Amino acid sequence: MSRTGASMSRAHPDLAPLAFLVGTWRGRGTGRYPTIEPFEYVEEAVFTPGPGKPFIAYRQRTRRARAGEPLHSESGYIRPGGADGAELVIAQMTGIVEVHTGEVAGNRVCFRSRAVRLSPTAVEVSRVERRIRVVGDTMRYRLWMAAVGQPFQVHLEAELTRV
Amino acid sequence: MSRTGASMSRAHPDLAPLAFLVGTWRGRGTGRYPTIEPFEYVEEAVFTPGPGKPFIAYRQRTRRARAGEPLHSESGYIRPGGADGAELVIAQMTGIVEVHTGEVAGNRVCFRSRAVRLSPTAVEVSRVERRIRVVGDTMRYRLWMAAVGQPFQVHLEAELTRV
Repeated sequence: MSRTGASMSRAHPDLAPLAFLVGTWRGRGTGRYPTIEPFEYVEEAVFTPGPGKPFIAYRQRTRRARAGEPLHSESGYIRPGGADGAELVIAQMTGIVEVHTGEVAGNRVCFRSRAVRLSPTAVEVSRVERRIRVVGDTMRYRLWMAAVGQPFQVHLEAELTRV
Repeated sequence: MSRTGASMSRAHPDLAPLAFLVGTWRGRGTGRYPTIEPFEYVEEAVFTPGPGKPFIAYRQRTRRARAGEPLHSESGYIRPGGADGAELVIAQMTGIVEVHTGEVAGNRVCFRSRAVRLSPTAVEVSRVERRIRVVGDTMRYRLWMAAVGQPFQVHLEAELTRV
């Protein structure tokens, strides 16, 4: 049984189409945006099913590559179902919350924001898209973002390995 | 040094007014709402500072008392600052995200929702208030909620102990 299979063995059966996400993933990414210096980061992301009810808990943390200082963290929940196949709700340490719907196709999912809301001191973000693809034990994701008056564009790209 | 003090020793200095929250808390609560049967639950809540940047990561899980099946989980971030002293962003496994501002007074904080947003399959919630008070190693909280067309009222009350 694969590590995904072992982790999923007690999970809700509705989670089967999202099972490819389950695991602890570590790797590296790059960030860019017109308003900031490009940067490289290391990341750990954890996708944990259930318990019991049909959801996957998600949390991640990034640190700056080499220097190592903490950069970002966020956490939330992926839920199967809805018209598009999946939903994602996320809270971020930057004071941002997002509600997404996601289209699942094989071992890919594309989450598109339906709502982005900000705490009073957060930086303005208006739209986010998160595309995740898993091949074997490799996860690649891209995050698109419209923020601080800039057009919608790629902000993050990363490649993680299931550990 | 108290357990809170030990946990806070590497935290960002801006977190000092919120240090009373830091720790792992376990205890029991009761839930009620006009649309459901009253219920009792056990809870674990964890408030972890940083690292590095000024925020407290928050996550909790509840299970039904006695029967033990999982009921709820949520996670998010508390940020110091803003006009009211604190902000809170939360994502819930029920498909709900909340943005709150909070008034801090001694070892109490009252978070009031500024935005509540729902995934397409979530139950309708329109307003939430979360009041937390810590005395020594005891945390008491109440959660008020306006949901599914019902007036704003107490939904949850719990008493937790720092472990």
